[in-house]
Amino acid sequence: MPDPSNCAPQSARVFSAEEKQAIYDVIAHRRDVRNEFLPDPIEPDCLQRILAAAHAAPSVGLSQPWNFILIRDTARRAQIKAAFEKANTEAQAMFPPQKRSAYGALKLEGIEKAPLNICVTCDRSRGGDVVLGRTHNQDMDLYSTVCAVQNLWLAARAEGIGVGWVSIFDEADIRPLLRLPDHVAIVAYLCVGYVDRLFERPELAARGWASEDALADVVLEEVWGP
Amino acid sequence: MPDPSNCAPQSARVFSAEEKQAIYDVIAHRRDVRNEFLPDPIEPDCLQRILAAAHAAPSVGLSQPWNFILIRDTARRAQIKAAFEKANTEAQAMFPPQKRSAYGALKLEGIEKAPLNICVTCDRSRGGDVVLGRTHNQDMDLYSTVCAVQNLWLAARAEGIGVGWVSIFDEADIRPLLRLPDHVAIVAYLCVGYVDRLFERPELAARGWASEDALADVVLEEVWGP
Repeated sequence: MPDPSNCAPQSARVFSAEEKQAIYDVIAHRRDVRNEFLPDPIEPDCLQRILAAAHAAPSVGLSQPWNFILIRDTARRAQIKAAFEKANTEAQAMFPPQKRSAYGALKLEGIEKAPLNICVTCDRSRGGDVVLGRTHNQDMDLYSTVCAVQNLWLAARAEGIGVGWVSIFDEADIRPLLRLPDHVAIVAYLCVGYVDRLFERPELAARGWASEDALADVVLEEVWGP
Repeated sequence: MPDPSNCAPQSARVFSAEEKQAIYDVIAHRRDVRNEFLPDPIEPDCLQRILAAAHAAPSVGLSQPWNFILIRDTARRAQIKAAFEKANTEAQAMFPPQKRSAYGALKLEGIEKAPLNICVTCDRSRGGDVVLGRTHNQDMDLYSTVCAVQNLWLAARAEGIGVGWVSIFDEADIRPLLRLPDHVAIVAYLCVGYVDRLFERPELAARGWASEDALADVVLEEVWGP
């Protein structure tokens, strides 16, 4: 039974101006890292802190559907890298001919350069047949898992650790390497390592691949459309 | 053309021990808020800051597929609340009989109590037919949008603003109220307002609906399974 003293809201933690700035700065200075990883292993206590931050994410019905698979084995990472390479060649061919050379010049993963990979999965069966909040949107468990990824990413940045999200692979190539059962989905495959240098803007913007939209262009009032 | 001086990583922002603690604290003290909203309107500069934090989220191929629809109109919110009520009645009936009374006692939304609702959408067409990083997982744009939600949630918490994610509705009931075109998906419907009191633990744990798993139970080495 719950302790009734826990069953009422308490005075909320207030953040000072300096603390708010730190939170805004970690959000602004977070980058998707592909090439800046240093080889040093992640310090174990530090790894526990960033995993705990991920585990503190919101989850639908408090189902906490995520798992974090820590991958360091070099042979396994070489196999995952090969799956990326195969998919990336397919991906390059999907772009119009005039963009293929620019695409090929981009480094899009740090699977072997980063000392740690983390596969973040979602157990679609966790919480049972009916999960509070998932009754009308079955994907809420996947979304909860993404919230955990973003918490991990920000905590890592605060610790001087870069994270890169690799999404270019066929799931069918990766699943057997991680022995995933059918009810477990891959949500994110992350490359993780210390960094001391980072791009000041999103790398794809700095390299001229894509440009950033203004905030005003994505905020709407009351309904969609102009 | 990109400025070549932007095309190299720079010294990364380092966070002090106090700053790191603020970041961990905002992650730990974030709550899914349903009932603690104060009626005060969100200060406009503050709203811009939390939306900018959302807009700084990682996005696949820098596609920034999100929009933020700000909903304040009381008639529209009453219609959305009605859609919630309909779905919530259906949801209650999905649980085993012995859980229905406990389910019905939970308050699961603050649509009308919070002064602001934000519908966070994902434009599935943004970035064109082929988006870097989305070639092998078409859902990466949805996941990018969830990252924006989590950034918004944390920035809001730092500002003393609570956020509650409502997922119990039929999308078909909400889409016409917001005039969403077919290529735009609803990712999150958020209730947003100042708070001065919050639960110290997740409310569903405090109320005995669900319990939290230990971090050690969700961390795996190299592959799935024991």
